[in-house]
Parts: sequence; structure tokens; C-alpha cells
Amino acid sequence: MQFHLNGFHTGDPAVAAGPAGDVPPDFTVLPAEVDVLIVGCGPAGLTLAAQLAAFPEISTRIVDQKAGPLELGQADGIACRTIEMFQAFGFAERVLKESYWVNEVAFWKPDQARPENIARHGRIQDVEDGLSEFPHVILNQARVHDFFLDVMRNAPTRLEPSYSRRLLDLQIDTTGGADDGVPSHPVAVRLERLDPGHEGEVETVRARYVVGCDGARSAVRKSIGRALHGDSANQAWGVMDVLAVTDFPDVRLKALIQSAGEGSILIIPREGGYLIRIYVELNKLNENERVASRNFGVEHLIAATRRILHPYSFEVREVAWWSVYEIGQRLCDKFDDVPADRLDRRLPCVFIAGDACHTHSPKAGQGMNVSMQDSFNLGWKLAAVLRGRARPDLLHSYSAERQAIANELIEFDREWAKMLSAPLKSSASDAEGVDPREVQDYFVKHGRYTAGTATRYGRSLLTGDTAHERLARGFPVGARFHSAPVVRLADARPMQLGHLAEADGRWRLYAFADRTDPAGTSSRLRALCEHLANAPSSPILRFRQPNDEIDSVIDLRAITQQGHRELALEAMPELLLPCKGRLGLRDYEKIFCADVGSDLDIFDMRGIDRDEGCIVVVRPDQYVSCVLPLDGYAELSSFFAGFMRGEGGMS
Amino acid sequence: MQFHLNGFHTGDPAVAAGPAGDVPPDFTVLPAEVDVLIVGCGPAGLTLAAQLAAFPEISTRIVDQKAGPLELGQADGIACRTIEMFQAFGFAERVLKESYWVNEVAFWKPDQARPENIARHGRIQDVEDGLSEFPHVILNQARVHDFFLDVMRNAPTRLEPSYSRRLLDLQIDTTGGADDGVPSHPVAVRLERLDPGHEGEVETVRARYVVGCDGARSAVRKSIGRALHGDSANQAWGVMDVLAVTDFPDVRLKALIQSAGEGSILIIPREGGYLIRIYVELNKLNENERVASRNFGVEHLIAATRRILHPYSFEVREVAWWSVYEIGQRLCDKFDDVPADRLDRRLPCVFIAGDACHTHSPKAGQGMNVSMQDSFNLGWKLAAVLRGRARPDLLHSYSAERQAIANELIEFDREWAKMLSAPLKSSASDAEGVDPREVQDYFVKHGRYTAGTATRYGRSLLTGDTAHERLARGFPVGARFHSAPVVRLADARPMQLGHLAEADGRWRLYAFADRTDPAGTSSRLRALCEHLANAPSSPILRFRQPNDEIDSVIDLRAITQQGHRELALEAMPELLLPCKGRLGLRDYEKIFCADVGSDLDIFDMRGIDRDEGCIVVVRPDQYVSCVLPLDGYAELSSFFAGFMRGEGGMS
Repeated sequence: MQFHLNGFHTGDPAVAAGPAGDVPPDFTVLPAEVDVLIVGCGPAGLTLAAQLAAFPEISTRIVDQKAGPLELGQADGIACRTIEMFQAFGFAERVLKESYWVNEVAFWKPDQARPENIARHGRIQDVEDGLSEFPHVILNQARVHDFFLDVMRNAPTRLEPSYSRRLLDLQIDTTGGADDGVPSHPVAVRLERLDPGHEGEVETVRARYVVGCDGARSAVRKSIGRALHGDSANQAWGVMDVLAVTDFPDVRLKALIQSAGEGSILIIPREGGYLIRIYVELNKLNENERVASRNFGVEHLIAATRRILHPYSFEVREVAWWSVYEIGQRLCDKFDDVPADRLDRRLPCVFIAGDACHTHSPKAGQGMNVSMQDSFNLGWKLAAVLRGRARPDLLHSYSAERQAIANELIEFDREWAKMLSAPLKSSASDAEGVDPREVQDYFVKHGRYTAGTATRYGRSLLTGDTAHERLARGFPVGARFHSAPVVRLADARPMQLGHLAEADGRWRLYAFADRTDPAGTSSRLRALCEHLANAPSSPILRFRQPNDEIDSVIDLRAITQQGHRELALEAMPELLLPCKGRLGLRDYEKIFCADVGSDLDIFDMRGIDRDEGCIVVVRPDQYVSCVLPLDGYAELSSFFAGFMRGEGGMS
Repeated sequence: MQFHLNGFHTGDPAVAAGPAGDVPPDFTVLPAEVDVLIVGCGPAGLTLAAQLAAFPEISTRIVDQKAGPLELGQADGIACRTIEMFQAFGFAERVLKESYWVNEVAFWKPDQARPENIARHGRIQDVEDGLSEFPHVILNQARVHDFFLDVMRNAPTRLEPSYSRRLLDLQIDTTGGADDGVPSHPVAVRLERLDPGHEGEVETVRARYVVGCDGARSAVRKSIGRALHGDSANQAWGVMDVLAVTDFPDVRLKALIQSAGEGSILIIPREGGYLIRIYVELNKLNENERVASRNFGVEHLIAATRRILHPYSFEVREVAWWSVYEIGQRLCDKFDDVPADRLDRRLPCVFIAGDACHTHSPKAGQGMNVSMQDSFNLGWKLAAVLRGRARPDLLHSYSAERQAIANELIEFDREWAKMLSAPLKSSASDAEGVDPREVQDYFVKHGRYTAGTATRYGRSLLTGDTAHERLARGFPVGARFHSAPVVRLADARPMQLGHLAEADGRWRLYAFADRTDPAGTSSRLRALCEHLANAPSSPILRFRQPNDEIDSVIDLRAITQQGHRELALEAMPELLLPCKGRLGLRDYEKIFCADVGSDLDIFDMRGIDRDEGCIVVVRPDQYVSCVLPLDGYAELSSFFAGFMRGEGGMS
């Protein structure tokens, strides 16, 4: 954490300086105009609100039908990739502290000798080694909301949700056409107040952008004429959070239990050491039948669990929450308001994210995670456009990128759900059904999907080609920047390189040095720094606005092959020791060294070409845009010129 | 973290259930009687208050002269051992996140060729490998206060300080004599209110115990007729927290700089990446001269720093805080109100802790750390006596243990301070002065003191003999329990064994198993569990009060030599899977396994005898009381019988 740059302040450094006079707006009242209106305080909405709250020059409001924050959430699985994002928002350690850590998965199937009993047939590690520096964890969605609400509250805008608001309708004024400027509040939204004393009052808000994070029945989605398409689900599942006593030994492990004739359950231990979640396979539904018509009660779920767990006992002492649902994998064909054939003529101003545009079965633990990644993808883009740093056509990339990812995940989810619902093979020669070993193998193979690290964006303005990928084999273009350990030069602190990246809308250039000491004139890293500090085509200079710090748009960090005791700090390139802020203080946190002599040398771990070094260009949402040679000056310039807006540059 | 034991609750699990009706007392008013009155909201006072706040049956108040919480603290060094304690209070991760980590120390001395310049002559690791799982860090004392205040606020008592109170005097009624019961409020304390509208109002509070954490000029200390004894200091030092620009390359390392003729400075980088603290040696004072008489200003400190740093530049942009002081190592001969010759006839009811009974020079970074360890030592003892779980003569051990430790530290500190102030040898043949290499060697040798891990309590009722120490060479009797990694059996979670220990007043028995699988009848661990669960002499049964959970006084944890996949959870001894709480839920967090196959096997790391296993008995403040054989039943019983009070037992 860096703080005190503009003078010493007492108090919690996580609390940013507030608005002028430290009087935040009254969030119980909606203004007539806002830059961004977010509809829905779920994971997608709060991720976006937390991101936009960081920018005092953007006016953001987030509304929800509910009267206050969520107390009891349904989602609970938090993928490794999601915690990497939480780290950027500054609360990963709070999640790690409270949550259940999924370390291993146990697989149970009918006992061969006595098939009426279940028996353990496998145990595997949940997340493969080295996939992420963070574990896969389970935590009540409501706590994740709490943490995002804290981020918003501590941000310079002091953003709070405006509760008790129901979206009535929204109108888009498309007459502005595809001019190159930011459209001026083209979306008119009508909201009905639901709070006591104000019931039925209608407010009209004009917004530059509206983002529908309002769930599977999204009113925003309907208002832009989009729909979810997909399977009609005819498999019913039940889910319950219970405090129970059992002699089943794997009750504190994630456990998939497939019985011979009674169906399957999935046990997910919950935070706190006692609570468990159980997903129970219920009967097949008939064509077009809805789960509600079956009158399932929690006693059905408990009874089914008892039958499946046989011969183990299972006694529920308290039910914290339960529900029944149908599996549905459904997807919207586009995540914004611009028809596919109008991309070149219109700019998007209404977006949908999360369950509003894709739904999954809950058992792969995807829903909440993908939703948050949606709006993390959108947030920095909206901020860049609203702050005049990027051209508005950048916003087309949101739907393009996230719809493709959602589609991939739904394919995976569909197969996984089918596999869990299929009857088990009774013997190897059985033609029908699924072999329990297949289930286990599929689970292992798709660990990267469930960890959230399989996302890889396709080639676009934001994702370069793979021509130079050999310079950094461990940083695939389009995938998330995979952190690794380094040692900071100035203070010898061992740390994770990826944890530098805060959710602050900045681009990062990680310059991995060649073998030469950066103090020397033959250093390619030094030459890069000199270019970036001086050349008119330097994107750091070109896209910087007046009064910007040198690193406020594009943040350069260097990583050397030499250990931290082998280098002279005072001889490092000037650009890596920049003077910043009101007081002109030196920032000592730009240069990092490989942890030489350990088996955790980042150059080895990420396959960096030691002779050539390279530049890894990383987006504000932590995805690798491109890998370039250290002297790839022209490619670097043209990459940023593709979508950014600068003072002196064209745009 | 364990929660939801007595039913599912929403919200932050760190917030305990509050008092009946969730209406805490009004802390702006002092009651006529309290169990414990703490005087002073410094580190010692707040540690004690946070500890006592955990027990709703104990009424505690903490008062301070100040009108509100500290905003700008003087102390900043936080030793590894202190963070281990913070972990028990539940906020280590907050400290680790905000603080500067002291990784290395740089030593500078006059350049041999040009002695008017300084030159680096060494760099060493600050904390030796394996000393603690936590780093040595630097953080503003005010933030540590904030974290303790949060612990108090979240505790069942919702304890808050009562500010604006000045102690006028206190009277002890010693007529009760040394009966064996808890004395009934023998201390009468008069306090003057300083808050606007109430100035001059005098309140009288009768307390069972009063603890003076009121600093070097302690009014509580004076009221019990004790005094600090020690050196009259005649060396003046200055200290300043500044935002500065310099080309001195080690400004983000802890750096000790000894110049040829201008004296010494110590640079301590501070949290946030920009702020630095500098300790500056000022002129020698004359006999009986006080530093105040010299009229030192911060400009003197800055000028001295510039001279010492020559040839490096040093330009201060903002001074956050500064002070000048004399070094003094002073100590009180006893830390409670009982004269040394009355130990057998009187019970202590007034204690002093922290700077009230010992002062150090700040440069060894000891003051705040030792103060907090003082009251961590006292807190569980007061709680045990007030809750009827220990005999009141246990309280004699506070002064006995902590006075000896303070004495040791002051000896160390005195030598260290002298070394830093001594003139440097100009050549090896110089008979006078200190060789810079000696300073560096001394620093290395005393790393354990500065890390706070050198504390080792002498033999007493609470500290057994070393007869069985060979069974666990890595857990010296009297030293703090040194954490090591393990894997929890039930959920395969890798974790630190020592982090189980919360600041909850409980004793811990760590039973390290012999080679046998604890499922088998020949297992010595199983035999121990059966003894503890059934034998009338079992301390777990004997010192348990009605309605107590099985682990609420003495908490048994087992560690096996087998890896977690080699054991059958269902075959483990019953006592290690206890049913607890209103709902009778099973606690799955008692059994841990060595991390076999890694180089971090706790049996190897801590030198446990694999053939015999052992029991490590650990106090509520994390110190090892004794190491016993797994079948040392009689020794175990008699150890606890030495000071505890049980239902059926004598006392």
C-alpha cells in the first residue's frame, strides 16, 4: 500500500480523501443526470460500482429493489481468479480469513461389493499446483457484498447504493448517432420508489450509460429487447445450507457422492467450521414442467441426502437456508444495446452483466465469479471513456469479449451438469451411463475453468497477436497476468508481482530486463526507459493529460534478472524512480528483482527469454494484451494508439 | 475462524454476540464498582482491555486523560513476536497489509579512503530464517490502537474507553488480608473529569483490580509507592518523521549510519512507501542537564542528518512529527503493590505495566512490544482469577515474570544504546571507541531480542522443569510456542499450528503422536485421549465448570506423524471430534497432520521425538509451560492442580 504521497495523514489509509468539504451526495435521492446508472446490487453491480467509485470525476449511482444490503446469499464459491481480482480491490485478505478453503475433492460411488452403500473411490487436489497464488474458497455472497460496499464507502466518491428502487422502463435516444464524442445522457430511466413514505413515487434519471446487473429476470435486458436463450431444463436440484451431525467422514471436504439408485449429492463445506451446503439431485421433471409445481420441501432434500449417504447417518440440527431450482444454461446473444449489424454506426450505452445475460447451473461454482469478471471488464472501459482517455468505440469490446467467454463457460457447464445428472454405469461393459472415473477425470481436466483462469480473450484492438509470445511463454496473450514472486529492489521485500495491480483503471507495462545490469549503457531496459521518458511517440507521454502523474495512465514496472543485492539503486534509469505528487517525492516501488537462488525465479517460472527480455502489456483488468520485445517501440505505440485518446495524439 | 456453532447468523463473524438486548453500558459514565480498572489507553492498556473484553462476566473499564483515541503515535516498531500475539487477537493481517516490512538492515560507516564521506559496509537480513512465521514491521502506533479498539468494540462486552479522566489518587484497603478468595473491590480510585461541561467533577470507582498502564510518569505507580530506577541519561537524541527527497540509496532500508565526526543516525522507513523516521544523535548533555534546556528544534535534526549523510543530499519536504529526548533505561523493582517481603501474606490488587515500570531507548524497537507483552501476560491471569478458574496467588507471577524480562531487555538495550553513541574507532589499533563491525555483529547476535522471541520465563508454578525437553527440542520450556506448518485432517487445509491459539484465555495441550496410527489400540495418543476423557484426575474434566464446553478451559489438539490422506477420520479418538454447543455439532478442527514429504514436517522442524511423541502444555499467552511424555498423566494433573481451581478439586 502506498500512502502519504501528498503529505502525512492520520487514520486508516484505506479511506481515500473524500469529496470537497468531505460532504458526499445524499444517496437516498437520485439526481436528474448521472454518468453511469447501475441497476442491481448483486456481485456484478457491486464490482462495477466499486470500480467506478474510485474516480471522483465520474458520477455513478447504483440502485436496487431491495430495501438494504443482502444478508443471506445463495452463491458461495469464489474461484482463485476472483480472489486475484479482490486483491486488486484491496480485500483479498478478508476473504481468505473468513472463508472455507477448498483444498481437496472427494469422490464417492456405490461400493462394489455392497452397492447399497457408498464408498470413497478417489481424492484429488482441488486446484492444480501453481495455477494461482490464491486458493479456491467458499464464502457467503453477502460477505462479498459487504466487502465491496466497504470499498465504495472508502473511495473518494463515498458511493452508497440507493435502495428501494424498481426499474419501470428505459428509453434510449439514438439520434445522437455514432459521433466520436461521449454521448450526452442518451438513456432516460424511470424508477419507482418502494421505500415507506415514498411508495409509488417515480423518478426519472438521465444517464450516459446504464448497466443492467439485475439478474436472470433483468428488466434492463428486456428493455433493450434481448432475451436469454438456451436449454429448457428438466432436471430439478435442491440446495440447502444446514448445521448437521453425521458420521460421514468427508463432510468437511468438497465431496461428490453418486449412489447406485438414489441419485447424487454434492457437499460443499461452508465457512466457520460447522455449516455445510448440500446440492441434492431431485427427480427428473416432465417436459415443460416447472420445479415449483412439485411442492418440494426441505424435508425432501434431507430425506434424499439420507438415502444417498447410506450407510452413514445424517441428522440436520438447523436449516439456515434452502431452495429448489431447475438447471438452466442460458445465454444472451449480445451484452449491449447495439444490434450486431450496427456496430460501425452506433455506440453502446446500455449494457447487461452477470445473470442478466448468462445463467449457469450452480454446481460448477461459476455464476458469481463470471458475473464479477463481466463488470470488472466493463468498469475500466467505461471509466476510460468517461475520463476522455479512450475512444468510445472501445465499449464494443465488452460484449464481444464477455459473450464469447460466457458461451465457452456454458458449454463447459452444460457438459458438467449433464455428467452429474446421468445414471452411473453399473459395470464397465454397460453401454449406458457415466463411469464415476470419467466424472473425476473431467473434473481434473476442467480445473482451470472452475478456477476462473481459463479465460483467454481473442485477438482484437485490446489483444495483440501472439508473434512474440515466445519471449514470455508463461504469460499467454489474452489470459490473465499470472502473478509470481519477486523481491522489491529498494526495500528487499519479497512479494507477489501481480499484487501491485490495483483496481485503479491503470495500464501496466511489466518490462522484464535482458541479462545486462540496467545501470549499463548496453541495457535494453535502460534504452526502453529512455525511449518512454523522451520520445514523442512514447505512449506514457502521449496519453498523459496535463497534471497527470507520469504513471497515472500507464504504469511501468521493471523486473531484473539480478538479485536485489547485485544492483545499485542509484544507477537505475530515472523513469523507474519517478518524483511524484505535490511534494515531488520519489516512488521507490517500480523496480523488482528475481528471487535468485530460490526455485521461484520469475524468469524461469514464466518462461521469460533471458537474452532478450520483453515487455508484457497488461490491461487494467489484469489481462495480458500483448508481449513485445524490449525495443518494440513502434508496436507499443501503435497498440495504445488503437483505442486511446491523448493530448497531442489523434483520436 | 470458527462460527455458527450455536446456529447460523448473518453479518461479520468477528462481531461477537453482544450483551443482553445488545445494549452495551454507557462508557461515558463510570460505575461505582468494576472488576478491573485500567488506567491508560496506550499499547499496554489496550492489549489488556482487548483481552478482558472477551469475557462478558468480567466488568472492565479503561480510562485515559486524552479526549479521544491517539492519532499520531511515537512508537512504530512491531516485533515478530508481537505480530504472533496480534494473530491471536485476530488482526495480524491488517498490520501486515499496512506496515513497512523490515527485511534487511544496511550499515554505513566512514569511507576508508575519504572519511568525510559515508560508505556502505554491510547489509544483513533483519530477522534470521525460521525465527517466526511473521516479519518485523513498522507501523504507526495509532493504527495498532485502532485495531485493538476494534477488537474491544466487536467483543461481547462492546468495551470502549472512557476518555478525559485523570487519576487523582487511589487507596488500597489491605485489611482483607491474604484470604484465598477474590478480594471484594479493595481499591478506591478517584478520577477527575476533563471533558467540556464536566471539568473538575470527581468520580470514585471501587475496583477489584487496578492496572496502571499510564506511562513513564505513571500516577498509579506513584500511588503504590514505587519508582523507576536507572541511569541518569546524558545522551540526547532527536527523532523525526519526514517526507524527504534524497539520493541516499538505502532510504527504504533500515539503515544505521555512523559518520566519522558528525555522529550517527538510524533510518527507519515507514509505512506507505514515502515516510521515513530518522533518529539523530545530538550532543552529549552535561551532568544533570535536561534535553529541554538545549532548545533543540527540528532544524537541528535536519542539519545533523545532512552532515552525517554527506555526500548524499537530503531535502525535507514535510515534517510529520518530531521530538527530542534523553536515553533512559529505567526499571521498577516490582510491578505490583505487594512488598517483596509480604508475598505470602498479601495478594496483589494493583499492577503496573509498560512504560509505567520500564523505559527503554527507542532504537531497539522494544518499548511498545514489551509493554503489550506485559499486559498479555497479566490479562489471562486476571481473567482466570476473576472467573474462578485459578487461585488468586497466581497473580504474584505477573511481577515475577515480567520484571525479570524487563531487566534482561534493559541490560541489552543499555549496551546497544551505548554502542550506538560511542565514537567510532578510527583504526583497528585505536584503543578507544567501537568498531563498526562490532556494532553489526552485536545486532546479529541480538536479533532474537529485537524480534521479541528471546523471552524465556524461569521455573515457577507456571513453568515446569526441563526434564522432558528432549522430547521436543524446538519447544523450549518457558519460551513462546513456536508455530510451524501442519495440514488439518478434516479438510486438508495447510495452516500454521500456532494460529489456532486465540486470545481467549484457554490453555492448549498440543499432543504430538507417536509413530502409531491413532486409530490403533497401541497408540499412546489414543491412550492419552481416553485418560483425559474419562479419568477423574483428568485436568480437562476436573477444571471444567458446569455448562463449560469440553475444550473451554483446556483445549486439546493432536498432531500426527502420518499425512492427512493416510488416516481415517472416523477412527480417531472421540475426544478429538467433540460435539459442542447448543446443537451438539462436531468440532472438526482438533486433529492436524505433519506436512509429510515437504521439507516443513513439524516433527523435524521442532525436533519431536518420533518414537515417544509428547505433550506440549501452552499457556493462554502462548508460552510453553512444560513438555511431558504422552503418558505423563500424573505430571499433567499436578501441573494444573498447582494453580487452578476446579469444581471437584481442591483449590
